[in-house]
Amino acid sequence: MRVLGIDPGLTRCGWGVVEGRPGARPVALGVGVVRTSPDLDLELRLLEVHTAVTALLREHRPTAVAIERVFTQNNKGTATGTAQAAGVAALAAAQADVPVAWHTPSEVKAAISGNGRADKDQVTLMVTRVLGLATAPKPADAADALALAVCHVWRGPAQQRLRVAALAGGIGAPVRPATLPRWTGVSAR
Amino acid sequence: MRVLGIDPGLTRCGWGVVEGRPGARPVALGVGVVRTSPDLDLELRLLEVHTAVTALLREHRPTAVAIERVFTQNNKGTATGTAQAAGVAALAAAQADVPVAWHTPSEVKAAISGNGRADKDQVTLMVTRVLGLATAPKPADAADALALAVCHVWRGPAQQRLRVAALAGGIGAPVRPATLPRWTGVSAR
Repeated sequence: MRVLGIDPGLTRCGWGVVEGRPGARPVALGVGVVRTSPDLDLELRLLEVHTAVTALLREHRPTAVAIERVFTQNNKGTATGTAQAAGVAALAAAQADVPVAWHTPSEVKAAISGNGRADKDQVTLMVTRVLGLATAPKPADAADALALAVCHVWRGPAQQRLRVAALAGGIGAPVRPATLPRWTGVSAR
Repeated sequence: MRVLGIDPGLTRCGWGVVEGRPGARPVALGVGVVRTSPDLDLELRLLEVHTAVTALLREHRPTAVAIERVFTQNNKGTATGTAQAAGVAALAAAQADVPVAWHTPSEVKAAISGNGRADKDQVTLMVTRVLGLATAPKPADAADALALAVCHVWRGPAQQRLRVAALAGGIGAPVRPATLPRWTGVSAR
């Protein structure tokens, strides 16, 4: 599987593409940061993030997009913009018909370093090691995006199998009916 | 001016189109609600909101879009989704080259009812009266979207004139250089 990881943000939106499968060493195919100027109107910053993610999807053809799950109750000042950047990235994935997975920062840290409370330096160190990179990816947003992609390569398929099995009734754990997919269409009038 | 007002949300996203100018009675050209199912994956819900807003822009050709400014520190449970719905609506406007204005709920309430702390019933009543509607728009999200559009028709041009004058140096109030528009482009590498 090939995963585009996105560490969402307006000022810096990290991205990283990783290919691999559970149990094997993943390979990094690309990494970078999309920057938009705080001087721009919000809608134009969102347009830039959306355009950049759309271009990345076209270039790298990932089978999944992994986005950091944003908790808006933290760091209030930038939380709305971060949530909106995550939203337009998810929209770009939906428009390209690529499934989106959301992972919390602690899930990502635990997957990459074994410690859900690892700091930024530890995450960068482990990303560099796991992917066998010659130099550490910078800035931290780029390393975080690669960590997200690695996390999804390692955890995603297992989660997906559990979910599919649960939906099919093959696993004892109760599943809320509300989690069953149902397409309702847009009612706009 | 013709304004598309958006009361953002994933479960219910209200919209309303109003035409008018400051000092005159505005006219409602359309009102409604976009609903998406909570059973859908988040990215598909965002896709539905984006698709619906894009269609509304194409149909009504507004000169401005007014969106409720979301404060993520309130009602934590749904704040991220609301911010993301607002984000994809703003993106749709940017893609259609229509400027976006953000108004807080208290600005809208003050503009429509003279009271920044008006409740939902008061807002609906005043929207119905101001627009000379035969029946009150429902649900409240639709009425709120119309109120946003009326607020922008009445307040928007004055705000815009002040801003342009200030940027041109015609008004004494100091303007931070950071508020001057500057296009920096996307750096995605």
